Amino acid sequence: MTGSTALLTDRYELTMIDAALADGTAHRESLFEAFARRLPDGRRYGIVAGTGRFLEALSRFRFGDAELEFLRAEQVVRPATLDWLADFRFSGDIWGYPEGEAYFPGSPLLSVHASFAEGVVLETLILSILNADSSVASAAARMVSVALGRPIAEMGSRRTNEDAAVAAARAAHIAGFAATSNLEAGRVWGIPTMGTAAHAFTLLHDSEADAFRAQLRAAGPGTTLLIDTYDIAEGVRTAVEVAGTGLGAVRIDSGDLPTVVQAVREQLDRLGAVRTKITVTSDLDEYLIAALSGSPVDSFGVGTSVVTGSGAPAAGMVYKLVARKDDAGDWVSVAKSSAAKASVGGRKSAARRLDSTRTAREELVFIGDGPGGEAEFEADGTLRPLSVPFVTAGEIDGSFLGADGVRLARKRNAAAMEELPVEAFRLGRGEAAIPTTYRG
Amino acid sequence: MTGSTALLTDRYELTMIDAALADGTAHRESLFEAFARRLPDGRRYGIVAGTGRFLEALSRFRFGDAELEFLRAEQVVRPATLDWLADFRFSGDIWGYPEGEAYFPGSPLLSVHASFAEGVVLETLILSILNADSSVASAAARMVSVALGRPIAEMGSRRTNEDAAVAAARAAHIAGFAATSNLEAGRVWGIPTMGTAAHAFTLLHDSEADAFRAQLRAAGPGTTLLIDTYDIAEGVRTAVEVAGTGLGAVRIDSGDLPTVVQAVREQLDRLGAVRTKITVTSDLDEYLIAALSGSPVDSFGVGTSVVTGSGAPAAGMVYKLVARKDDAGDWVSVAKSSAAKASVGGRKSAARRLDSTRTAREELVFIGDGPGGEAEFEADGTLRPLSVPFVTAGEIDGSFLGADGVRLARKRNAAAMEELPVEAFRLGRGEAAIPTTYRG
Repeated sequence: MTGSTALLTDRYELTMIDAALADGTAHRESLFEAFARRLPDGRRYGIVAGTGRFLEALSRFRFGDAELEFLRAEQVVRPATLDWLADFRFSGDIWGYPEGEAYFPGSPLLSVHASFAEGVVLETLILSILNADSSVASAAARMVSVALGRPIAEMGSRRTNEDAAVAAARAAHIAGFAATSNLEAGRVWGIPTMGTAAHAFTLLHDSEADAFRAQLRAAGPGTTLLIDTYDIAEGVRTAVEVAGTGLGAVRIDSGDLPTVVQAVREQLDRLGAVRTKITVTSDLDEYLIAALSGSPVDSFGVGTSVVTGSGAPAAGMVYKLVARKDDAGDWVSVAKSSAAKASVGGRKSAARRLDSTRTAREELVFIGDGPGGEAEFEADGTLRPLSVPFVTAGEIDGSFLGADGVRLARKRNAAAMEELPVEAFRLGRGEAAIPTTYRG
Repeated sequence: MTGSTALLTDRYELTMIDAALADGTAHRESLFEAFARRLPDGRRYGIVAGTGRFLEALSRFRFGDAELEFLRAEQVVRPATLDWLADFRFSGDIWGYPEGEAYFPGSPLLSVHASFAEGVVLETLILSILNADSSVASAAARMVSVALGRPIAEMGSRRTNEDAAVAAARAAHIAGFAATSNLEAGRVWGIPTMGTAAHAFTLLHDSEADAFRAQLRAAGPGTTLLIDTYDIAEGVRTAVEVAGTGLGAVRIDSGDLPTVVQAVREQLDRLGAVRTKITVTSDLDEYLIAALSGSPVDSFGVGTSVVTGSGAPAAGMVYKLVARKDDAGDWVSVAKSSAAKASVGGRKSAARRLDSTRTAREELVFIGDGPGGEAEFEADGTLRPLSVPFVTAGEIDGSFLGADGVRLARKRNAAAMEELPVEAFRLGRGEAAIPTTYRG
């Protein structure tokens, strides 16, 4: 968590600042907004993740010697702009949806109020983090919702960039995954880590029984034995023979899962290992987990599909200049022509309308105000405010950072999921579960 | 490029070492291999990328105080294993396909010959990097092949994790992309960076003409003006009026591209801006680039589709223990039963058979030898060896590292693409362009 994040940025952010500093427009007070015009791929809802990581990255968004030297050598910007960058400290306000919250098309996920230069320079970093992390969290939430309370572990590190893997473990945990295989995610974000052995461990040994004995000696009988390296029925028999009926769990990583799981459960019970659990980890996604809803599976491990967003590897969020002041100091709402219908200018906050059963019915976006702006519209107890301040006059709210931030986000997600209408949990393609309405 | 990479690792790699140290099998001489059982998604070939990044990460694969303290506190492994980890320095051999090379199902992309413990501990890191980077390179190569020599810039940083973005820019450049928008990729890997302005820059100004004037003042007439914020024809007219006929380029980011590009070209020519180039950047992928093959486009910018592997966000590589010694010191080929048909045990090297036109016809995998092992099989001038040593007795070959490694990989890719048969360049789904044959 050290090192500058300032060059994790598209070159054009800096050349825009370069030109805007020259004509004075760089200092125009501006409002940028990150939002998704639509949900990916027929999804019913999305889950916000990455905001806490962005805030940590913001605290390291500094143009140091190495960064400035590169920009100078490459003549990316003029010398006067290098001075501006060297002094850069974000001094504006940022507010939006906290991590773990559900979102819908148009939900104002992150609003940045600052000078044009201060707002535009953050664009790439904000979108990289929100798009990647929300993609994982949105996929993870669907998997959790069909796992019917059985825990899911994230084990997809090998299927995504090595640093993205740490962030993916974090996003999946926020969206309800119980644990991760990724050790760095455990160290940095406080996520429980899991994992015992791969097929290579069995193959290393002269026999499956030797491998099981070695694992049990090191890890104790509560461990999980991988029983499908050779023949599954033989593997189960050997596992119970070597470990005894107190064996913690067996893992199945192949085969026609509903059939195999049922057979393994029956075999374990016959052998007296009635409390030995079954975990499955075979290229699962939300559809395969749902297909195991009637099977005696105790926990799941998910890899590729969760870290790649299960078909939607980028959440599709954009970061747009929605309003800026003119030379007279008046706000001007702005939008490019092709986006006119989909963009709504102005300072926004949002609230979710709940019915009497506390089920979400509408996403309300209030125009003209920042966080708390919905208060003046109604004092209705069923309106749950969504927008919270993250950064005020450059000061980052520390409660969103670190492992504590992740814990809070995970709780927030559980509460947000409780509110979603039942239609949200259909796996098939469809429309957003609730409509988004603009007010003000 | 600082910091330990040791915990970018699945927990089970360490628990396997823990158990194997206890029973002595951790020291069994072993051979691991990274390969793809199949190509993703109907692809005809893949492009290897990430090896150089892995070698850099390997040099930082050290369990320091922070890593060891976490493992101790979480009781991931026993104290004796912590000592082994503290002393860990990879001391084995690694060889395989250098970056930029084409690959096919079964191509032995990375072979690791070391003790079981030293080989298994690298699994997660190797796969994270190779899967992610090769996914991007494989998608990028398809785009380059249909761009018919017109340069493509990578601009997808905002659509993938912020660190993955830097690696993606690198992988795309190896596979023939000319430049990237990502500044850190420019700084660290020496890739040319590009980009001028977004719609926000136009919207910041009181008029499109004001915005163009500001950009031209800062960047000079050779710049690229984004002309589709409002009306495209009006944007082109204003651009030439403000910049003159020496304007470098215009960028189009929306609309029905074949129609719009043709109209813009005609308008530019009518206005006398006959040398002003046209670049397009509107959610392109290999299919849309191919659809513009007859259009007067001078360059392309590609975002989401390249950084997410254009439908195949993970290359599907696995890392398997293929052979290990027994206590008598004899090699034993190993494979789990379900993989028996797809895995081939033993030390491997590979060569590509070329016909008299230097077109690739067969991927030959030689079993029983390391790099150079194919030499004993034939001295045929049309057999191009593919396997090269990366690490010898723990010593990393520096020629694969840094910006120089990227430059060489890019050249190697251009040569490898020249050899592919014409069938490889069909965009439609199909089989691997050449068959893989095992020998020995």
